[in-house]
Amino acid sequence: MPALVEQKCEACRADAPRVADDELPALLKEIPDWQVISDDAVLKLSKVFNFENYADAITFTNRTTDLAEKEDHHPAILLEWGRVEVTWWTHKIGGLHKNDFIAAAKTDKLNT
Amino acid sequence: MPALVEQKCEACRADAPRVADDELPALLKEIPDWQVISDDAVLKLSKVFNFENYADAITFTNRTTDLAEKEDHHPAILLEWGRVEVTWWTHKIGGLHKNDFIAAAKTDKLNT
Repeated sequence: MPALVEQKCEACRADAPRVADDELPALLKEIPDWQVISDDAVLKLSKVFNFENYADAITFTNRTTDLAEKEDHHPAILLEWGRVEVTWWTHKIGGLHKNDFIAAAKTDKLNT
Repeated sequence: MPALVEQKCEACRADAPRVADDELPALLKEIPDWQVISDDAVLKLSKVFNFENYADAITFTNRTTDLAEKEDHHPAILLEWGRVEVTWWTHKIGGLHKNDFIAAAKTDKLNT
């Protein structure tokens, strides 16, 4: 199995499978800094990226929106001064698809 | 008194005055679509802007970050597909300064 960061998000249907609970540990091992959060019973992947100034936070936001367009998968991006919180989940299935883990791994790469 | 949109944010000190409760109605009249929300007892101004696609939401986000740099006042911007939520408050005083109302009025102008 290739690393998450080398995979591509697949078009997601409403009946696509959510990631099963027993698959989570192996997937999270590749993105250890991401938190699984429950937002109104919808599981999401979230991570805060800190920056020294506003310009760097904006640059990272722009890279993340470029990634979103490329993968055709769109996260919530909360941009503040020196801080960007990125949250991935799959709206259509109301939870986490493997796409979200791939996108999270690729988001990490944007900050290196 | 000039309209909010014609004023400029002033540098804000930790001992700058919060907007008093009895000043709120007149200020909110100029930005009628903004909500005053209480976030952990900190009052903030928040508004959701909806867009037909991701590109328009990104364009509006970029305009808002440009405004933030120009005013040297930085909001929380929550960007999702077709939706941007902008929240203004003054961190230093833990609440709303007149700057936030000026910034909100100018944010509305970015979407016209």
